[in-house]
Amino acid sequence: MSTFTVGDYLLARLHEIGVNHLFGVPGDYNLQFLDRVIAHPVIGWVGCANELNAAYAADGYARCNGAGALLTTFGVGELSAINGIAGSYAEYLPVIHIVGAPATQAQQQGDCVHHSLGDGDFHHFIRMAEEVCAATAQLTADNACAEIDRVITSALQARRPGYLSLAVDVAAAAAEPPAQPLSIAQRSSTAVRKAFSAAAERLLAPAQRVSLLADFLALRWQQQSALAALRAHGAIPCASLLMGKGVLDEQQPGYVGTYAAEASAGQVREQIEQAEVAICVGVRFTDTITAGFTQQFVTERLIDLQPHSASVGGETFAPLTMAEAISELQPLFERYGPQWQPAISPPPAAQPAEPAAIISQHAFWQAMQDFLQPGDIILAEQGTAAFGAAALRLPSQAQLVVQPLWGSIGYTLPAAFGAQTAAPDRRVILIIGDGSAQLTIQELGSMLRDQQQLIIFLLNNEGYTVERAIHGATQRYNDIAQWNWTALPQALSLQGQAQSWRISETVQLQEVMARLARPQWLSLVEVVMQKEDLPPLLRKVTACLNQRNGG
Amino acid sequence: MSTFTVGDYLLARLHEIGVNHLFGVPGDYNLQFLDRVIAHPVIGWVGCANELNAAYAADGYARCNGAGALLTTFGVGELSAINGIAGSYAEYLPVIHIVGAPATQAQQQGDCVHHSLGDGDFHHFIRMAEEVCAATAQLTADNACAEIDRVITSALQARRPGYLSLAVDVAAAAAEPPAQPLSIAQRSSTAVRKAFSAAAERLLAPAQRVSLLADFLALRWQQQSALAALRAHGAIPCASLLMGKGVLDEQQPGYVGTYAAEASAGQVREQIEQAEVAICVGVRFTDTITAGFTQQFVTERLIDLQPHSASVGGETFAPLTMAEAISELQPLFERYGPQWQPAISPPPAAQPAEPAAIISQHAFWQAMQDFLQPGDIILAEQGTAAFGAAALRLPSQAQLVVQPLWGSIGYTLPAAFGAQTAAPDRRVILIIGDGSAQLTIQELGSMLRDQQQLIIFLLNNEGYTVERAIHGATQRYNDIAQWNWTALPQALSLQGQAQSWRISETVQLQEVMARLARPQWLSLVEVVMQKEDLPPLLRKVTACLNQRNGG
Repeated sequence: MSTFTVGDYLLARLHEIGVNHLFGVPGDYNLQFLDRVIAHPVIGWVGCANELNAAYAADGYARCNGAGALLTTFGVGELSAINGIAGSYAEYLPVIHIVGAPATQAQQQGDCVHHSLGDGDFHHFIRMAEEVCAATAQLTADNACAEIDRVITSALQARRPGYLSLAVDVAAAAAEPPAQPLSIAQRSSTAVRKAFSAAAERLLAPAQRVSLLADFLALRWQQQSALAALRAHGAIPCASLLMGKGVLDEQQPGYVGTYAAEASAGQVREQIEQAEVAICVGVRFTDTITAGFTQQFVTERLIDLQPHSASVGGETFAPLTMAEAISELQPLFERYGPQWQPAISPPPAAQPAEPAAIISQHAFWQAMQDFLQPGDIILAEQGTAAFGAAALRLPSQAQLVVQPLWGSIGYTLPAAFGAQTAAPDRRVILIIGDGSAQLTIQELGSMLRDQQQLIIFLLNNEGYTVERAIHGATQRYNDIAQWNWTALPQALSLQGQAQSWRISETVQLQEVMARLARPQWLSLVEVVMQKEDLPPLLRKVTACLNQRNGG
Repeated sequence: MSTFTVGDYLLARLHEIGVNHLFGVPGDYNLQFLDRVIAHPVIGWVGCANELNAAYAADGYARCNGAGALLTTFGVGELSAINGIAGSYAEYLPVIHIVGAPATQAQQQGDCVHHSLGDGDFHHFIRMAEEVCAATAQLTADNACAEIDRVITSALQARRPGYLSLAVDVAAAAAEPPAQPLSIAQRSSTAVRKAFSAAAERLLAPAQRVSLLADFLALRWQQQSALAALRAHGAIPCASLLMGKGVLDEQQPGYVGTYAAEASAGQVREQIEQAEVAICVGVRFTDTITAGFTQQFVTERLIDLQPHSASVGGETFAPLTMAEAISELQPLFERYGPQWQPAISPPPAAQPAEPAAIISQHAFWQAMQDFLQPGDIILAEQGTAAFGAAALRLPSQAQLVVQPLWGSIGYTLPAAFGAQTAAPDRRVILIIGDGSAQLTIQELGSMLRDQQQLIIFLLNNEGYTVERAIHGATQRYNDIAQWNWTALPQALSLQGQAQSWRISETVQLQEVMARLARPQWLSLVEVVMQKEDLPPLLRKVTACLNQRNGG
């Protein structure tokens, strides 16, 4: 029992990269590896109600922790999780997916065992995983340690999922503990750095108006502090897109709002696009957050930093990491920043003379703005929640979790479970619609089992409001089964404590929020809203999506 | 609006093959096709709470109806469903999976649109589908009708899923209604049939002891009546495996029980294996239902009928459909059947002197045996439920739905929703453990929305009992979040009517069952059981699985 095994080696590597929780669902091909997990002094097992939810939870955990891990069983378990893994791939989250597999001999013989397709081919599912992973490996007793290192290193370097097929006998095989730490960091040559710096200086030195647009890849490569340090040299206009909102300190001078190309509010678009030099850091333009690719930047006046390369005025410098490129920009900001024009501050939001009785989208987000505290983690589901959250001005150290590229509805509920697991001492706020919450509701039971104190705003607008806005406003397919939402916390837990409210008036929302500054229990607030009411940004975006789908 | 479109063509073909319900979840790439579904005079839209559940429901529907169909959206939706599709592939169910995809132009340009991986490659997901489908197609305006016909025909011939990628513009493109019916039926040559018949006669003519073992592939190819007709010529020993239980009328003379190789009860094994000639119809030996491949048949004395071929004493005859082979056996049964020895009837089950106070597995299944009625559809979840159900003697016309090869826990709850949708007038009984029900619980809301009158026995044994039996009996990973099960029907529906009970004594079980002969509402019976109690078959099977996993 005390022999060090391949399973132990894998756990040692996970611990080394900061993964202290393993999400998943047990299955008979992973039970013995789970014995090693339970025996591990630090890594905790977090059982989830199903595998897709576990994948979402590991993704949410990775967004707060830098990396995450997931354990499922062969076939049934891994395929249930694969949509979550694909989301981690699309949105750049390093989630290590460990799949407990049948014994090597059964695989070699092509036995017709449970959880296989019955055709003797045990490679169907690793081939499927290859489509949505940075690296995959079928571990054997001989190659396991080297392959574990390769897959984890690749996943962390690419910030994308890694897949490890771990047969029951391989997990139990003897191994040596890691002798060396993993080598994750990547460095480029001094020559590339200098060439980039010189090119950037040629653009920046003569400029009067410089803007900074940062997005989600800067978050994934953890450049928040480096960006804040750049901005300390001058309050140039700064914005992020919805996908990476939170990467910039929105309380720091120069922040102008969320950039959404043609759908941007106020003067955000002009201040970002019409600078003499625009600096993009970790930006990918995707359809929903640019009102259908309406962004307009001139390549000759653009400095674009990506994870492993940069371009200046159309000239590419590679390999060059984002961190290296930002550090090359530091002295340029120091030298030239004082000559660049500061941003025009956005006007303060107009307070309505008297809040409406019913809770409009406008009233909800205004109340949410006042409710937020520094350090909050806010998860806003794709739909009215995420596009409403785009207009928030986040407090310092607050983090927003959204999934606008992959856009898998239901994602944020288990992701909130994962986020709270990663950050037990932070206030986690989940904002999700009724249509989305139905997909993944069972993880509410896991939150209660673990006595999490999440705050959930369940926006009940009777179905898929974002889809009504795109097409079929009154069609039956946009209706959902109507649930008794405030009864759910009691139904999904025998032990866990929870409080819940159902409210439909603005004054009630304010009263409830006043009680949730630091709640002691999980809190579910069902907010009854109008089914055709939309945040302004979403109205623009859905009109564009309907047009792209052919009306 | 009244133009006949590719979408309409597809619906016409689904209707032609008997699919009158389309399960799924709306998404913005399928909303306009959904308009055509809603407009269709017969095919009904059945919205589900999530895509995996919808895939399970379509599979359950196909088991009762012959074929099923599923609609999801690109990327997120289809991948959420893919574990369900893989189950349909492993267990031979023709489910047509229609995926609403981004506009052709966006795909050709490689746009970074939502629900894509953001890399411009729109073929990741169809490649994944190819691993678990009989046929796939990316429809274009030019090839759509021909490709729809090819994929549906292939899926029905193979009894396995077909995948259709339907871009928003292709769905809306003009088309002509089908001119000819699909050509599904397959025929083989008279020569092959005659050769098979002659070979079978050489074995059967001199035999005194002949046995018949039928399994799930005979169910999928709908050979129940043909098998009953064979058996009318003599009460030879007949059995099925758990996977195809129900394919034989268990009230017809000669039925000896469920064959499970070494784990068979009573004299089932001897009567089936030790005949002079064993006839297998639609049998695949898989690990869990044979106690780890302990079956023993002698090739020289075996007649084996598969969907598209047959073998007699080791000689293969192909192409030859199962239906053709059975019809060739008919005259042989007529001629020689009277000389074959009849089966030894199993002894009547011993009644315990006094039922135990607590509900043991033994007491539960004994009560269930008495509860069953002709025509019931029983869904028994992988775990204690399916292996307990193996010992039932089914009434005439009753159908059992189990998933022992793919074995995806949580499957039967949405599958029961699909089964009841296919057969609204039959009594549907779902038997599922608490660990499994948590994976897919939200479909209870859909049952209530549609006012289904299902009977659910929720076996609450505090976690994954089947896994405790395999490994880690007292390990924390086999525990689950504890729920308040009887509160769920009220929480998951505002309108639907339901009744629920929590019982722990045998006398209560009998009382509740007496009220459920023809329930008017959905009924949930939480049956509290001991967490280490197992049906006898499962005890044998789990010991074997643990050994195969290395102890």
